[in-house]
Amino acid sequence: MSIQIGIYGYGNLGRGVECAIRQNPDMELVAVFTRRPPETVTILTEGVPVYPVEKAAELKDRIDVMILCGGSATDLPVQTPALARDFNVVDSFDTHARIPEHFANVDEAARAGGHVGIISVGWDPGMFSLNRMYAGAILPEGKDYTFWGKGVSQGHSDAIRRLPGVKNAKQYTVPVEAALNAVRAGECPELSTREKHTRDCYVVAEEGADLVAIEEAIKTMPNYFADYDTTVHFISEEELKRDHSGIPHGGVVLRSGKTGWNGENTHLIEYKLALDSNPEFTASVIVAYARAAARLACEGQVGCKTVLDIAPAYLSPKSPEELRATLL
Amino acid sequence: MSIQIGIYGYGNLGRGVECAIRQNPDMELVAVFTRRPPETVTILTEGVPVYPVEKAAELKDRIDVMILCGGSATDLPVQTPALARDFNVVDSFDTHARIPEHFANVDEAARAGGHVGIISVGWDPGMFSLNRMYAGAILPEGKDYTFWGKGVSQGHSDAIRRLPGVKNAKQYTVPVEAALNAVRAGECPELSTREKHTRDCYVVAEEGADLVAIEEAIKTMPNYFADYDTTVHFISEEELKRDHSGIPHGGVVLRSGKTGWNGENTHLIEYKLALDSNPEFTASVIVAYARAAARLACEGQVGCKTVLDIAPAYLSPKSPEELRATLL
Repeated sequence: MSIQIGIYGYGNLGRGVECAIRQNPDMELVAVFTRRPPETVTILTEGVPVYPVEKAAELKDRIDVMILCGGSATDLPVQTPALARDFNVVDSFDTHARIPEHFANVDEAARAGGHVGIISVGWDPGMFSLNRMYAGAILPEGKDYTFWGKGVSQGHSDAIRRLPGVKNAKQYTVPVEAALNAVRAGECPELSTREKHTRDCYVVAEEGADLVAIEEAIKTMPNYFADYDTTVHFISEEELKRDHSGIPHGGVVLRSGKTGWNGENTHLIEYKLALDSNPEFTASVIVAYARAAARLACEGQVGCKTVLDIAPAYLSPKSPEELRATLL
Repeated sequence: MSIQIGIYGYGNLGRGVECAIRQNPDMELVAVFTRRPPETVTILTEGVPVYPVEKAAELKDRIDVMILCGGSATDLPVQTPALARDFNVVDSFDTHARIPEHFANVDEAARAGGHVGIISVGWDPGMFSLNRMYAGAILPEGKDYTFWGKGVSQGHSDAIRRLPGVKNAKQYTVPVEAALNAVRAGECPELSTREKHTRDCYVVAEEGADLVAIEEAIKTMPNYFADYDTTVHFISEEELKRDHSGIPHGGVVLRSGKTGWNGENTHLIEYKLALDSNPEFTASVIVAYARAAARLACEGQVGCKTVLDIAPAYLSPKSPEELRATLL
């Protein structure tokens, strides 16, 4: 029998999860849960019901894994522990600094309910974390680098949109090629924030707005832009729609390290993602870990886990024998 | 107490393991075992004894993990199962086609002895296998590519050295940049053997040897060179020593895949290694998995495992709490 999945929250990420489930024949979407009036939510999969979130608990015996697709700021800190009492859960909680606290809350709830919870699944945290860990364990004498982009930062785009006189905006985080190349050349550079990334902003201003003031407000915004070389392009709403409607992202995790009796040999480990759609890729990682959650629960495991705690083979629909014969 | 390690076989790989142990403060080298007369073997670590292989069993209570550093052709198929009866073992068995058979043999012996055996550890098989597995589970609708090099192929170098009139030789496997770029561009090309790699040979001929005949013999050698575009450079023994004494290697594993309701978005996952020393990097991976072997054995686990069966956190000396707080 296939793995029965519920989706809790239906935005870009929820839709990505729905698409990813369709690519995995061992999984089936049972229901989508939403805080909006269900009749206003149209999903892609035919014949699958949309329910209000309050109905979730009624379906707890029909859902093997509930995938949480809310935001990390206010949704997941509450939702993941609450749902872990009734379901095996997977979320993409990405507030790095609050992961230990979130882990503890989900762990307690999952153990109380006898379920598995996998948190912080995606690419960063997620696949990038995994790669930092593997590379660090292999090359203990070395240095880690993470570059993000080129890609859309939702947080930075929102920060620009909140400025007076701004109608719409999109911000791209761009890694500095020279810094990347220095790392790849094994130079182990010390890089400041400014030396690692630049920020490219595409802004639609309201009619008659003071463009100079907007540009200045962006470039001097603390935390978001002040520490970066920032470029501001004013464009029309039509251009924004035509050229900047995608949600691409990606990045690189590198570790440069030394081996040998006197550190005489240098090695570079590089993991790179180039993603047309940030939410769809994140969703694809989540769905692979939903398979792991279902299997771990079948084995009787309980509690909270992260990508670091889960053996790779749990993610694949192939049997261990098939994996050894074909992939190893 | 630190993890007590034995090294079984002391060639390039054994020496690499010795160097890697020194970089990991939670590990200690107990002894090196050799088939050569022990008095002829000088190791780097002061105060550590070199014993004949026959003495290994006597030290079984003092060694937490025995790392096997023999060859895959004839050594490991015999040694790993034999030693798994007395020790937790890690090897780098790399004959892909015979992995299922080797797994079964090591599994039986390790279970009989109550030990853990981890086989086929290194980078291919090893880290490349892991990355093929993760990427395939995340992007089920996609295509895998593995490129090797630029790096020295020991097998191909040996094949040239066996030709009449050849005194010494070194062969580099080189990925074709155009093929790599087509994959990175998301074109999902179908690539023949010839389109993926070229072979560069540096040959020292015996005095008076027929260079034309040697070049012809190399380029037409079945399996090794006939299916590739091969370049042969004749150089002096001095040039070989000066310019080609290293053992660099590396390569790239890529997966290009589609997501979305109609496969409208393309993603590229790339894992790349650039290694100054193939044996030292392989040794560094092995030593991280030796840590995992010791921990799994402490938990009471038994039997054969591969990199696909082991949760990442087992490789790191850091605690799960520390990993979550710093790496995730």
